[in-house]
Amino acid sequence: MRKVTYGAACSFDGYIARADGAVDWLHWSDDVLRLTSAYWDGIDTVLMGRKTYEMARALGSGAYPGVENFVFSRTLHEDPEPGMRLVRDDASQFVDRLKRQSGRGICVMGGGALARTLFEADLIDEVGANIHPVLLGGGVRLFQRLPREIRLELLQLERIAGGCVYVLYGVRGKGRSTT
Amino acid sequence: MRKVTYGAACSFDGYIARADGAVDWLHWSDDVLRLTSAYWDGIDTVLMGRKTYEMARALGSGAYPGVENFVFSRTLHEDPEPGMRLVRDDASQFVDRLKRQSGRGICVMGGGALARTLFEADLIDEVGANIHPVLLGGGVRLFQRLPREIRLELLQLERIAGGCVYVLYGVRGKGRSTT
Repeated sequence: MRKVTYGAACSFDGYIARADGAVDWLHWSDDVLRLTSAYWDGIDTVLMGRKTYEMARALGSGAYPGVENFVFSRTLHEDPEPGMRLVRDDASQFVDRLKRQSGRGICVMGGGALARTLFEADLIDEVGANIHPVLLGGGVRLFQRLPREIRLELLQLERIAGGCVYVLYGVRGKGRSTT
Repeated sequence: MRKVTYGAACSFDGYIARADGAVDWLHWSDDVLRLTSAYWDGIDTVLMGRKTYEMARALGSGAYPGVENFVFSRTLHEDPEPGMRLVRDDASQFVDRLKRQSGRGICVMGGGALARTLFEADLIDEVGANIHPVLLGGGVRLFQRLPREIRLELLQLERIAGGCVYVLYGVRGKGRSTT
């Protein structure tokens, strides 16, 4: 089974972008380059929801080069750009099939809405973050509300340049209902 | 000037309690005992907002022993219990005066509403968390939305028992507006 990973750089209060999508607060370093390169070597597929896609495209980056890109949407009607394939099917079923095919790891890009669906369907294997030393105070959250709690196991912890903290967790299953 | 600290144990998605205030998911360990004991040795005053107080009291714990306890509220009319003093004045002015008095450190208990007021008034010096390996999916947030971003500096990072991550940041001032 291919590994599905969700994560992003985030602020200490859990935002991955300002309300307008801006990520000007990100700290780039050799550490980030090293971790990001290792991660991208292990994947060949990128999944994102429509809102995340549109925010990324507004900032210039749409489909990522060298990987298969899928955008999940019921409002789009065709592939929105070359190299970006539209999926109108149920996301959980699609990702479940994808995991069973041969290939490298699968990256879920955040905004949290697609991740919520995939967490609930037990399809995410690892969750990570590069926690930046800032409280953004508002914006796009890394995690949306979930119907059930998700139990994690700390796999990796590293203090990296710029006062950032890299954490990686394995998903160990769902816990009790949050309502 | 006395140091003012805000922080709590939280889930990876930033909740300090379930929606009903429950903290049954907390992992207790010798590490937590060591960090907590050292922290409590350095403070003599605890501040909390009314909602946090009422949630704590519903779970059995009201005023903390051995420290001065203050609850901020405009709806309460008298000290709600022995050892818990009501403050109806402006919280920022009150804490500003308190910081200038002699004494040990000051702890702001979380719920986030009082912390938001004090962040905005530049009165919080350190922010910490004991990040637990779980996504609670909902509940009481460690951080509420802030009108301006808050720049931090990583002071301490420690992997502790149970897959928990202890982080401590110094507050380095306000950044740009979040709106």
